[in-house]
Amino acid sequence: DDDAASAMLGMEVLHVGPGEARVSMVVRDDMVNGHDLCHGGLIASLADSAFALACNSHGPVTVAAGFSVDFLEPARLGQVLEASAREVVLRGRSGLYDVTVRAGDTVVAEFRGRSRSLR
Amino acid sequence: DDDAASAMLGMEVLHVGPGEARVSMVVRDDMVNGHDLCHGGLIASLADSAFALACNSHGPVTVAAGFSVDFLEPARLGQVLEASAREVVLRGRSGLYDVTVRAGDTVVAEFRGRSRSLR
Amino acid sequence: DDDAASAMLGMEVLHVGPGEARVSMVVRDDMVNGHDLCHGGLIASLADSAFALACNSHGPVTVAAGFSVDFLEPARLGQVLEASAREVVLRGRSGLYDVTVRAGDTVVAEFRGRSRSLR
Amino acid sequence: DDDAASAMLGMEVLHVGPGEARVSMVVRDDMVNGHDLCHGGLIASLADSAFALACNSHGPVTVAAGFSVDFLEPARLGQVLEASAREVVLRGRSGLYDVTVRAGDTVVAEFRGRSRSLR
Repeated sequence: DDDAASAMLGMEVLHVGPGEARVSMVVRDDMVNGHDLCHGGLIASLADSAFALACNSHGPVTVAAGFSVDFLEPARLGQVLEASAREVVLRGRSGLYDVTVRAGDTVVAEFRGRSRSLR
Repeated sequence: DDDAASAMLGMEVLHVGPGEARVSMVVRDDMVNGHDLCHGGLIASLADSAFALACNSHGPVTVAAGFSVDFLEPARLGQVLEASAREVVLRGRSGLYDVTVRAGDTVVAEFRGRSRSLR
Repeated sequence: DDDAASAMLGMEVLHVGPGEARVSMVVRDDMVNGHDLCHGGLIASLADSAFALACNSHGPVTVAAGFSVDFLEPARLGQVLEASAREVVLRGRSGLYDVTVRAGDTVVAEFRGRSRSLR
Repeated sequence: DDDAASAMLGMEVLHVGPGEARVSMVVRDDMVNGHDLCHGGLIASLADSAFALACNSHGPVTVAAGFSVDFLEPARLGQVLEASAREVVLRGRSGLYDVTVRAGDTVVAEFRGRSRSLR
């Protein structure tokens, strides 16, 4: 795999299809703050990786222009997080993708990413 | 330091003051994708850490309710990134913070975080 | 109706249910710019009204803390826009709602609103 | 003026310069809800108009790709709102603009818009 960042965070790609992807990550003890809660940026990183796989699933190299994320429930040490990305719309070189991050049945975060293909 | 996530990412706290903070991070080879560009989620993680320090600088435990980030220029392997957070508004238990991430003089990302104090 | 703003913009409420609402608006000639395209803020206003109905459908007075909107296709003079709001999550006093604005089958805008109930 | 929507909402352009603009609007009785508070979408419309003037100040026709807004204080019937837009960054055909909406000294809303020039 050429994505060293996802590997460093222990992410596992569960599925990639046209406009969609699922990626999981275990909340390790080097990912938490003093309250044993996962750093929000790392939750966003998981969602961002699923987003990247989904928006690159069509072929052309595509990058993230930006994203927003809402944190709904904390993610705790040892939990397995799963990010599920789906394409909302793809128009020309711009796309919009929603990613839901869950710990079991609990929604931890909702992420919305904007993509741009380079050619 | 009790923030294992920031330590894992090699972040260095440069400054914390009332409603503000600056944090730096070097883009390591385990933070990039196959094009030697820093994972966007990790850029956001750096900004999120500066945001967390700024919004907790007043005393009460404060958490991120969410954030948005716009990626303006890529961050490359070996670059030193610096995130500078400032308070836009603090009203009751809710706050709004802007964080600019730079590599030298180049603005890499603009981040806007929403905070909520727990009591 | 006690919402003068929605009336001024000619909005029609099509449906309100628990956590959901649909509202329509015709793009009038006093809503467009010089290219006969609807002002983006008015498209957002339509979505915001559907959001307000959806998040107030549970009883407690609930207000918008903020929202984001992505404009996907222009809306033109004379088109009928329909905004459809659905609850993504409601946790304590905070909620997250997605609103899709369509002109016929075309998605004009995707809106995500954050609500907060006052008690 | 060829912007019928801004005229319909009674907006007054106070200033336009390179990458910046200021626009005002009085909260009329057809802009409020039952509590005499201004419709959030109309506050966003005011900010969006200031944003449009700022991002079109350089010449090429430029449109809003999207925006986010955080509502910080309510705006009341009869208040004069002033939206002040400034360019955060302009890179190629993409721009980022921040708009602050005030009622006197009170910050009512913070708006961040993303623009795209058409050629």
